[in-house]
Amino acid sequence: MSAGTLFLLPTPLADDTAVEILPAATLATARRVDLFLAENAKSARAFLKSVGHPRPLQELEVVEIGHRPDRAAIDGWLQPVHAGRDAAIVSEAGCPGVADPGAEIVAHAHRLGLPVVPLVGPSSILLALMGSGLNGQAFRFVGYLPQDGAGLVVRLRELEQASRKAETQVWIETPYRNDRMLAAVLATCAPDTLLTLATDLTGTGASVHTRTVAAWQRLSPAATARHRRPTVFALLATARHQDRTGGRIST
Amino acid sequence: MSAGTLFLLPTPLADDTAVEILPAATLATARRVDLFLAENAKSARAFLKSVGHPRPLQELEVVEIGHRPDRAAIDGWLQPVHAGRDAAIVSEAGCPGVADPGAEIVAHAHRLGLPVVPLVGPSSILLALMGSGLNGQAFRFVGYLPQDGAGLVVRLRELEQASRKAETQVWIETPYRNDRMLAAVLATCAPDTLLTLATDLTGTGASVHTRTVAAWQRLSPAATARHRRPTVFALLATARHQDRTGGRIST
Repeated sequence: MSAGTLFLLPTPLADDTAVEILPAATLATARRVDLFLAENAKSARAFLKSVGHPRPLQELEVVEIGHRPDRAAIDGWLQPVHAGRDAAIVSEAGCPGVADPGAEIVAHAHRLGLPVVPLVGPSSILLALMGSGLNGQAFRFVGYLPQDGAGLVVRLRELEQASRKAETQVWIETPYRNDRMLAAVLATCAPDTLLTLATDLTGTGASVHTRTVAAWQRLSPAATARHRRPTVFALLATARHQDRTGGRIST
Repeated sequence: MSAGTLFLLPTPLADDTAVEILPAATLATARRVDLFLAENAKSARAFLKSVGHPRPLQELEVVEIGHRPDRAAIDGWLQPVHAGRDAAIVSEAGCPGVADPGAEIVAHAHRLGLPVVPLVGPSSILLALMGSGLNGQAFRFVGYLPQDGAGLVVRLRELEQASRKAETQVWIETPYRNDRMLAAVLATCAPDTLLTLATDLTGTGASVHTRTVAAWQRLSPAATARHRRPTVFALLATARHQDRTGGRIST
């Protein structure tokens, strides 16, 4: 018997948008597969209901892999695929394996020689980069930054410095810490460094704004607040200030 | 009068897949807008025909921005948007602004305070990363590598070294040079470095394979050939060989 296929199945970023925001080919696979390796079983079932899976939900097999999949369990999860059954990895929102769990399972599928097929869908990181107007020929996604204040300042200075080589730096934050993150960037980076905030992408009230740090500073707190709304941050400093760190000229 | 919106409109990666691979929301915008800022006017018109734009093609305004948009022309291109008309940037394949032109226009739109909306669609970079099983919590896209042999080897060693900090390195190559690129990676990188080749994504015969350099070396040239087929490369070295460069132990 030939092996099944392991699909990477993106899910929507915003509520009630699955049918609008996922391509027909992705929706067709979501409705055909009956074995799902899900970051969260409950949200995966809600997603499968929202795309109108033709089978009763209780007949679908949804295996919860969690935020940090147990490596010892991966071989067992892939056994059905090895035996010929198709399966799909789904994360809570967006693209599995990109700032979301799934990569370890895909890596093991490659070691087993199983076919792997990534499907098209929304990625807040990619959408933020597209909408930023910052350099998309060279960019870096660095995940989450340190939570402690001093560590965060050091990391922001590193990212700003790295971006002076025309490499856009992209990161995410836990939504309830967005405003604290913005304040830290505005207090740390050079006035002419470009900063993008991409919020609620694909949702009602989605926005992408790129401004210099100086321009962000001039806005009122009400205009910049992103409290609890999913936001991607991106930064690109101008190349000409190779002699600056943190907005101060080194003299 | 309020301003129009500047959309970033992805196009398919493979022929005749637009309706399958673009979400309903993206297709709806493609069919509604009548002003397009296109990397290539001819391929943009073919795309608009393939999505079934309801207006006669000759009534649609398609402005060719080229591979390297003329900065002096951008203000003029955005004048209609400023005056209230919606427009969409389209590249030849994939997502505008990401390894494709468009970012300078988006940057100028932000300076003018125009609304910018990125739409969901296929990105070969993102799909390759999803399908690779390499680290998607930290990754870097570096565009094209040097063409000359010595420069390429130096750059590949830099990328392999950078990847030892668990940061996946992603790049692209002009398709007819794919096999030369693969040979260079196999001759340069450590045997246990993981290398992904993602080819013809979303097309017939799409494939994503991640193997160690040693495993790629064991395959026949016929099995590894990617000649003239669009391919994304990704690399992740193991962290434990901090003492190695180019597969040789430094002693």
